[in-house]
Amino acid sequence: MELMQLEGLDKYELDTPALLIDLDVMERNISVMADYFKGVKAGLRPHIKTHKTPIIAHKQLQAGAMGITCQKLGEAEVMATAGIRDILIANQIVGACKIRRLVNLAKHANVIVGVDNLKNAKSLSSAALEKGIKLNVAMEITMGRCGVEAGKPALALAKEIVKCEGLRFRGIWEHGAGWPDQYTKFEDRKRVHTEALKPFIETKDMLEDAGIDVEIVSGGYTATYNITAEIPGITEVQPGSYVFMDRAYKALEGLGPFDYALTVLTTVISRPARDRAITDAGLKAVTPESGTNYSNLILPQVKDAEGIELHLLSEEHGWLRLKNPSRNLEVGDKLELIPSHCCTTVNLHDRFYGIRDGKLETIWDILARGKVT
Amino acid sequence: MELMQLEGLDKYELDTPALLIDLDVMERNISVMADYFKGVKAGLRPHIKTHKTPIIAHKQLQAGAMGITCQKLGEAEVMATAGIRDILIANQIVGACKIRRLVNLAKHANVIVGVDNLKNAKSLSSAALEKGIKLNVAMEITMGRCGVEAGKPALALAKEIVKCEGLRFRGIWEHGAGWPDQYTKFEDRKRVHTEALKPFIETKDMLEDAGIDVEIVSGGYTATYNITAEIPGITEVQPGSYVFMDRAYKALEGLGPFDYALTVLTTVISRPARDRAITDAGLKAVTPESGTNYSNLILPQVKDAEGIELHLLSEEHGWLRLKNPSRNLEVGDKLELIPSHCCTTVNLHDRFYGIRDGKLETIWDILARGKVT
Repeated sequence: MELMQLEGLDKYELDTPALLIDLDVMERNISVMADYFKGVKAGLRPHIKTHKTPIIAHKQLQAGAMGITCQKLGEAEVMATAGIRDILIANQIVGACKIRRLVNLAKHANVIVGVDNLKNAKSLSSAALEKGIKLNVAMEITMGRCGVEAGKPALALAKEIVKCEGLRFRGIWEHGAGWPDQYTKFEDRKRVHTEALKPFIETKDMLEDAGIDVEIVSGGYTATYNITAEIPGITEVQPGSYVFMDRAYKALEGLGPFDYALTVLTTVISRPARDRAITDAGLKAVTPESGTNYSNLILPQVKDAEGIELHLLSEEHGWLRLKNPSRNLEVGDKLELIPSHCCTTVNLHDRFYGIRDGKLETIWDILARGKVT
Repeated sequence: MELMQLEGLDKYELDTPALLIDLDVMERNISVMADYFKGVKAGLRPHIKTHKTPIIAHKQLQAGAMGITCQKLGEAEVMATAGIRDILIANQIVGACKIRRLVNLAKHANVIVGVDNLKNAKSLSSAALEKGIKLNVAMEITMGRCGVEAGKPALALAKEIVKCEGLRFRGIWEHGAGWPDQYTKFEDRKRVHTEALKPFIETKDMLEDAGIDVEIVSGGYTATYNITAEIPGITEVQPGSYVFMDRAYKALEGLGPFDYALTVLTTVISRPARDRAITDAGLKAVTPESGTNYSNLILPQVKDAEGIELHLLSEEHGWLRLKNPSRNLEVGDKLELIPSHCCTTVNLHDRFYGIRDGKLETIWDILARGKVT
């Protein structure tokens, strides 16, 4: 109904703050990534925590992705409800309530869940047996966050998991090897990520030598997609942010093929001084961090404007500092902000406004927004 | 239905992350603030951007508040729908779409809207006339963010607003005078806030001398509630965070009467190293900033635990550093986090779980969550 009223509206006519997708750019990002993976052995398993929206996940699958990655069980439930079958939950699912939900979900989709702890694995196994299913699990190898240590500890845990009658051991995965997004230069990221993945790949070999099938060897993210994918032994890669890009990722060398598809449309609501304009998008409409790197902030950027700098986000307002601005700013004028961190910004909004050639084409509810459990 | 199933559940049985309210503490915070205002001339107009939930606003009104403050038009719409009549929108409402919504809302509640710009005032006036109403406006006097300059510029604007036939000039308001929450000591806050409010109060006098009624003189927030309220001429104060409190406010001397009522319940999902535990609450479940002060972060604190420090929030995980921890932490254990900034944390969640004596009493949807427009 609402879309029927609004379709074809110029994007600058939308009420603000509004989360816009440039559909042409997003579709190009999706196909550029999918095309890359057509040329390598590893598969593409995009992380949907970035967009949390089934139609975008379906577009990624149609372009060639082998399945999707989720972070939260609630995201996986939304995606399964939207007909998506192959879902890796790259996280530990802990606690009686969640495990019941997970096992029920596994009756409706091909879910593979992370595990790094024997007690948890046994709880998963019991719950699966009770429901008469086998639950797919993949063991997380730690790169400094969650996970079991590579090498012997991983082998010991895998041997125990294999004994769990309710589980089917599918492989291993990692997140963050070398934390390469700290490094702007491609060659630096390649060196630290490749080095950090060595014990991961060695663990795969060690499990196979022990007679354990390791069908899935999954890892990487947007910052490393074409590094991870080319490491022998890797079977799939989990990039998420490429679909929209953001300031943090665009700062990295080697991500040139992907462009900004996501912006926050905002209105100038006050012009209290010659060098200051205040907009209606604050911390509740766009996030000020770039992942874990919130001690060294890259704030959102004003698109297509010189001399207009967003220098502060307060709870409800964006503070612009003007210095020989390339455009005049009056109360009521609208600007687009390029987010610092697309994933956490998307999670603030209830819907995307899909724009093509400057006009509203579609509205998509962000169905897994706020699905933190 | 869900509440019927869950009522009486021990809070540690809830699935996580979950946003908990300690109802006894919240009710005490509400009554402590209301009782303070019974002893002063100024009225209490709590800011509901903190909780975004009608039932809590109604509790504040029942305790003695004269009305509420909102930041966003969408919040005011939710509150009016829930039967709340007296609403100050302490913000500029700009743009044709929002102005139409505002004027329609004003038919259903006693809305007073901020204004700091003549062109916007004229648009508001025209829209009101078209609907056959008079719209209440209150002029924002700038303290460094939005607003018109105190003194002559304010007088000049007020004279023009008074001429607008669709508007009823109700008074003035401010936000942030002296930005006193930078100062921990009460006496420092009192000094800078009182000093910064002088031109604000002088503006009131100047308008009255010019024959303009200034019925509303509104300002202040939790950090200054008992400073602002005692300044002669102030008619009402707009504290928000006192209802829940948070780490940023609790660090301020003089806010002792208010206690932490809000926590994020989180589960340990991985214990990858002796000194590291990882939980399921990251940046999408609790915010890392304290208002504008996100360059000097106070991270959320683990409640009732020594030697367990949250030192990093990544997108989906909380990273705990353990150093002689007062309690053992195993996978599946639950902890409560005290947020750094209650307002932005609430905005991430869809519901509150109301807890009394450790048991679930009620579930409240956060109806104005995400109402950024």
